[in-house]
Amino acid sequence: MPDNNTPSVADRVAAGFQARYAGATPTPAGIANEVLATMLNHKTVRRYLPTALPAGTLEMLVGAAASAPTSSNLQTWSVLAVQDKARIAKLAELSNNQKFINTAPLFMCWLADLSRLGRLGETLGTEMEALPYLEMYQTAALDTAFAAQNVVVAAESLGLGTCYIGGLRTSPVEVAAVLGLPKNVVAVYGLCVGYPDPAAVTEVKPRLPQNVVLHHETYDAALETKAVPEYDQAMLDFSKRNGMGDADWSQRALSRAGKVGGMSGRHQMTDFLKTLGFGIK
Amino acid sequence: MPDNNTPSVADRVAAGFQARYAGATPTPAGIANEVLATMLNHKTVRRYLPTALPAGTLEMLVGAAASAPTSSNLQTWSVLAVQDKARIAKLAELSNNQKFINTAPLFMCWLADLSRLGRLGETLGTEMEALPYLEMYQTAALDTAFAAQNVVVAAESLGLGTCYIGGLRTSPVEVAAVLGLPKNVVAVYGLCVGYPDPAAVTEVKPRLPQNVVLHHETYDAALETKAVPEYDQAMLDFSKRNGMGDADWSQRALSRAGKVGGMSGRHQMTDFLKTLGFGIK
Repeated sequence: MPDNNTPSVADRVAAGFQARYAGATPTPAGIANEVLATMLNHKTVRRYLPTALPAGTLEMLVGAAASAPTSSNLQTWSVLAVQDKARIAKLAELSNNQKFINTAPLFMCWLADLSRLGRLGETLGTEMEALPYLEMYQTAALDTAFAAQNVVVAAESLGLGTCYIGGLRTSPVEVAAVLGLPKNVVAVYGLCVGYPDPAAVTEVKPRLPQNVVLHHETYDAALETKAVPEYDQAMLDFSKRNGMGDADWSQRALSRAGKVGGMSGRHQMTDFLKTLGFGIK
Repeated sequence: MPDNNTPSVADRVAAGFQARYAGATPTPAGIANEVLATMLNHKTVRRYLPTALPAGTLEMLVGAAASAPTSSNLQTWSVLAVQDKARIAKLAELSNNQKFINTAPLFMCWLADLSRLGRLGETLGTEMEALPYLEMYQTAALDTAFAAQNVVVAAESLGLGTCYIGGLRTSPVEVAAVLGLPKNVVAVYGLCVGYPDPAAVTEVKPRLPQNVVLHHETYDAALETKAVPEYDQAMLDFSKRNGMGDADWSQRALSRAGKVGGMSGRHQMTDFLKTLGFGIK
């Protein structure tokens, strides 16, 4: 039972909402529950305790994933659970050498998987003509994301922490070899799962003010001119408070998207996917 | 307060898990909470009551969306809320003419949005070199999916129902015109949001057995041979019980992916995206 020092669900929703927007967006009144409180207080975790996940946790998380919508029920995703320390280390090395990944007891590889439909075609004795198109790859990648995001929220509801590893797209051909992936399957990103190391917990990271991202009826970018400099200041303050250096949002975005070199080789994605069997027509 | 006839959260989790896998996957014991119960009992809703959403609901849902992870905090997504009935009707028409969309009081258009980074480059007086690559488009599309999936779960936790509309990708150039989208923005899918019409509620839709989708350490498709025919039977039974015709999963997958014609024109996605300003290199 919660004692008097436990914040109410309404307080947790309000605190999460205010932190998420760094105070720049008013919290809607009178709407709160456990799901919202969990989501709004999401924090990416980059250091984990060695504690193993309780029995059944992986299976329950994947049940949550399977419950996410999937385009036309095609279920063009799979997930590969890696718990072997040596294999996690290899995948961490292939993900821009991000060493913190090694602290996670579970590393989930989210697979855009058109191979199952390919095998179905073989069983039915027919060619699956749609598979070689960019649209089918996109459908599969989106399916992984709906499924994986359920896992992120479900994991946090169980006291676990997570971190998506987009760096797994740096060397997708080598990753496919490590995971034994058939043709027409690619690891779109990894997901670390484990109990957060309390010594490394950060604040909720602020996002752009809501009125910059939420448009009504038609697109309107007019509010950005004023909002982005204010958000830059909020992110600079957040970064300093959390020991994350002194770059603001605009500077970080520039270093990531300004030069092809900031893509860590991922500008070759079309070639990578073709090597793995996707048509991307 | 729940009365004695209200199922416990553990019961709701177990019922959802069993229905999700049509009894083919055992429910992990001793793991249950409101978040899991909400997710596991997800049902897509295709008919809505005319009831308007309570004040603040949209803003709370978008706060949940903003709380989802985003690659390198780039936030390469926007969401456009359409509530004007005539505009919803136009978008429904452009989404393979799916008339049920018109019953939703809110239609959210999820936008892969690289234009904000483009405008940032203009402000900083530099070219954002990464933008014309498939990888950046993919990053933006995945960002929309993480955000939108939080909205699906948050909405259901508030008693609302949702339905993704992938059909919005059938005519993305026309959709961009209706929404006034700038260059480098595309509506990746829509999302209907509203209170479910209780006259049209279905069962939880079964998915492939978990051991077909969840792999350990390396990929293994061996279990599919036996599992897919069993799943076909489960889906046939589900479809008949819910008035959804008498096609099984394999047949439905074949009609969707077997012929280019099953893509409703979306095989032209690369050209659509280039017309909208994306490089897709």
